Amino acid sequence: MHLPSPPVIALLTDFGLRDPYVGIMKGVIASISPQANVIDITHAVIPQNIRHGALLLAASSPWFAEGTIFVAVVDPGVGSSRRPIALETDRGTFIAPDNGVLSIVMRQHAPVSCHHITNPEVMLPSPGATFHGRDIFSPAAAHLAAGRTIGELGPKIDPGSCTRTGFPEPHIGRQGSHIRGEVLYSDIYGNLVTSIECSLIEGHPEQWQVEAGTQVLQNIRRTYSDVAEGEPLAYCGSSGYLEIAVRNGSAAAQLDLDAGDAVTLLRREGGMNSPGH
Amino acid sequence: MHLPSPPVIALLTDFGLRDPYVGIMKGVIASISPQANVIDITHAVIPQNIRHGALLLAASSPWFAEGTIFVAVVDPGVGSSRRPIALETDRGTFIAPDNGVLSIVMRQHAPVSCHHITNPEVMLPSPGATFHGRDIFSPAAAHLAAGRTIGELGPKIDPGSCTRTGFPEPHIGRQGSHIRGEVLYSDIYGNLVTSIECSLIEGHPEQWQVEAGTQVLQNIRRTYSDVAEGEPLAYCGSSGYLEIAVRNGSAAAQLDLDAGDAVTLLRREGGMNSPGH
Amino acid sequence: MHLPSPPVIALLTDFGLRDPYVGIMKGVIASISPQANVIDITHAVIPQNIRHGALLLAASSPWFAEGTIFVAVVDPGVGSSRRPIALETDRGTFIAPDNGVLSIVMRQHAPVSCHHITNPEVMLPSPGATFHGRDIFSPAAAHLAAGRTIGELGPKIDPGSCTRTGFPEPHIGRQGSHIRGEVLYSDIYGNLVTSIECSLIEGHPEQWQVEAGTQVLQNIRRTYSDVAEGEPLAYCGSSGYLEIAVRNGSAAAQLDLDAGDAVTLLRREGGMNSPGH
Repeated sequence: MHLPSPPVIALLTDFGLRDPYVGIMKGVIASISPQANVIDITHAVIPQNIRHGALLLAASSPWFAEGTIFVAVVDPGVGSSRRPIALETDRGTFIAPDNGVLSIVMRQHAPVSCHHITNPEVMLPSPGATFHGRDIFSPAAAHLAAGRTIGELGPKIDPGSCTRTGFPEPHIGRQGSHIRGEVLYSDIYGNLVTSIECSLIEGHPEQWQVEAGTQVLQNIRRTYSDVAEGEPLAYCGSSGYLEIAVRNGSAAAQLDLDAGDAVTLLRREGGMNSPGH
Repeated sequence: MHLPSPPVIALLTDFGLRDPYVGIMKGVIASISPQANVIDITHAVIPQNIRHGALLLAASSPWFAEGTIFVAVVDPGVGSSRRPIALETDRGTFIAPDNGVLSIVMRQHAPVSCHHITNPEVMLPSPGATFHGRDIFSPAAAHLAAGRTIGELGPKIDPGSCTRTGFPEPHIGRQGSHIRGEVLYSDIYGNLVTSIECSLIEGHPEQWQVEAGTQVLQNIRRTYSDVAEGEPLAYCGSSGYLEIAVRNGSAAAQLDLDAGDAVTLLRREGGMNSPGH
Repeated sequence: MHLPSPPVIALLTDFGLRDPYVGIMKGVIASISPQANVIDITHAVIPQNIRHGALLLAASSPWFAEGTIFVAVVDPGVGSSRRPIALETDRGTFIAPDNGVLSIVMRQHAPVSCHHITNPEVMLPSPGATFHGRDIFSPAAAHLAAGRTIGELGPKIDPGSCTRTGFPEPHIGRQGSHIRGEVLYSDIYGNLVTSIECSLIEGHPEQWQVEAGTQVLQNIRRTYSDVAEGEPLAYCGSSGYLEIAVRNGSAAAQLDLDAGDAVTLLRREGGMNSPGH
């Protein structure tokens, strides 16, 4: 895959920024590929929450240049037999433990090839058993940035053999009468990102009523300022999914909703098939 | 304006580092201007607190190279009619929503010109209504870094037409007998930054007594180690404003002061006009 | 010392990321050495805790390229008479206040020379008394990155004259019957890093029993997944020191241990000198 110049390595981990783990990964990368432009996506994935990592990675990857090398380390099984893998897609290359953290990007970007990282030349000498972000994933990414091919990382494997985490596909009712999804996560503002893709409601947002917790929202809005301060609203979020927010407030707190809670869209009478609406 | 090489883009937002929003902005910037050196000022502006953002931006901008491109996104009105603007000054170019977040840098650095960002070529395609940091501000900054002129961002507007937030000018008493200001914000150490510029007391710090909350400080000190551990002190802060701290402690907690609380300097007898002091 | 290309400046401070202090340091560096690759080790050293800073710096520095310029600012004595120093070692150059924050890297990397930073040409004009990270340490590092020699920073001093913080050397019992160390710090996961170097137990990890708080661990393990979820384990940590963790949990919370608490290794019968074990 063609790399941007300078090559871009984007990092997503659950390491936080309190400990020097992320800094150490960057030290390793700079030693191997001094030219690489290293960008932090986030290091605040909920600790060891593979699905949260998978969601944030998928929400971020479309905004990076083609050929970006992504490193995603949410790795509760570090040191066990789970494989380190490198997945090449039409968007970029993803380096991660084979534990499901790549399963949502695999739905999103067509896999070109997948490799099991086994070549000791692309790892640090004598990798330990507890910090593969430093010993395996960062150096593998840096070697790609420095010009090695994905084939040099290790043998090809079937992308279909890779671990998947369940993504909660929304349920679409008969004749499109309703869509039932769930809250995926809340962001720092307390905005709730749901599993309902905006494409499902495109063109006819005014036809849907949103039920979330005890709240019923009569319309899907365009942006926060379409409602009064302190009022809840549903809208097509910047990630491409329906979101629920409270203007200048926290929907997570005010609506008492969290990951996994149900969100339902109900189509009003005079819906999708009614001409003139 | 002459750009440093590589061009520098400095980011200030209230997005925090938990969500991938800042990483996404950097992904967008790297796609458009791969050479840009992107520096985080802070992403911990108090959420939607335009004045806090304006203060931190003004405290930081003097320390960056001339020609730096600043992006300041504290944007509670995103998606409403507030304008995205680009302000060129003798220090650098500031890209932000027109909501007052630039009003303190405008007092500080002479405006050269101001533009309303309207050109779709410097935005992402089909900008959404909720994340202009990604869709408008970052790409506009990256296009400047990549060589476009500020005139290509959109039409010139009168800097005087831009929104200002009130900056609490200190009140100076008759014959300079006292200066009344307020706490602007506290930093991570609990140091209290006030609205009283150091230049107001320059040359004669020993003439002033400081009243803050229930505390009376008899002198303005040079640095923390001029008082005993646990003792409060007033001193000329690194930002150019009078600060109040507790050595090895938190002034915010110990003096129970917060943004908006009054701080008063009283000139002692034998003051500014007394020779020999 | 030979610099990597581009030069690398690695930052460790207790400034946090809420205030713009770190961003300001990077603005200063970019003004003086636009090519430098600035890497954050961490900015979450426990405020004013020199020993914590010293430990994290020593844990990180081996993973950076030779010739890296490290800047370590944990500086409760800023503005007092403590010296700003630059220490050249076989690993890289360390710029810091002379207060002990470099004392553990001095044990680790052979000092080549040490200098007292006094040359006003490598500082900002009129350095203040409260933010030497901005006024002295960052510009000195940036001037090295831009090609000045360490000799230009100021006069040579005896590394032996530099302040040391006590590092708690583990106590090794008679005939190696036991090793007594302590908890140095806990990381974000609640993993406890101890003062017992892995090299002390290398080759015979199965001979040691670990006592930590009220807990007795019968074995030293390889990695987290060697025990059941929720179980504690001792293992050779990625930093080269014995660590105590709880799989998918927090050892700090579950074992109620913190910095300074004792950790003891007891050698079982049939120990180091018994052939066949």
